[in-house]
Amino acid sequence: MKNKPFEMCMLFDFYGEILTEKQKEAFDLYYNEDLSLSEISEHLGITRQGVRDAVLKAENILRDTEQKLGLMTRYGKITDEMQKISYITKRMTILNHDKYRNAELQNYILNIENIAKKLTF
Amino acid sequence: MKNKPFEMCMLFDFYGEILTEKQKEAFDLYYNEDLSLSEISEHLGITRQGVRDAVLKAENILRDTEQKLGLMTRYGKITDEMQKISYITKRMTILNHDKYRNAELQNYILNIENIAKKLTF
Repeated sequence: MKNKPFEMCMLFDFYGEILTEKQKEAFDLYYNEDLSLSEISEHLGITRQGVRDAVLKAENILRDTEQKLGLMTRYGKITDEMQKISYITKRMTILNHDKYRNAELQNYILNIENIAKKLTF
Repeated sequence: MKNKPFEMCMLFDFYGEILTEKQKEAFDLYYNEDLSLSEISEHLGITRQGVRDAVLKAENILRDTEQKLGLMTRYGKITDEMQKISYITKRMTILNHDKYRNAELQNYILNIENIAKKLTF
């Protein structure tokens, strides 16, 4: 049942807060803590089927919300752009090192690089 | 009643798709098209009170969703960072113009500037 765990964890990171407490707890233990349905059932004191239903319901809500809002996709595009910036700053560093060896320029490059790193996930 | 229209339009841009069709239509006419409640009432063929209820309900859902998910705030922070990058690229352009007048460097700066512009909203 554990399908595309990376995508699921990402969806949970974005939209997890719209789930009910029970859905959140079951989903978190299942995907983030990697427990089995039986282990979660024991841990939460609900039936294995109850855990399964909560996880499936949570998956559906998360997928449905992304399909409607697309905010995770939008964020993914930002990461792509940040990777482009990181590539360009690397080229700039080489250019500066080979040609000017200017500390001020290197400082600017570093500042941009740090922002790009911070916004890449 | 029209409260913080800019914030409302931004919230609608982010989360509008989770509203019902009726809420979406009323909200859009009220905030984006700037019609009055009476005008929307005529336009949609529902009572003025019905329009008012739909808009208020939509406002609450949008605000509540932002409070839970905070994705608009997260996006706002990206805009802040992009403005920082734009500032740095301006300084780099001046440095390049004053010191090196290097076309390759200017090209890198421009590429970064364009990405920052694209991601600022």
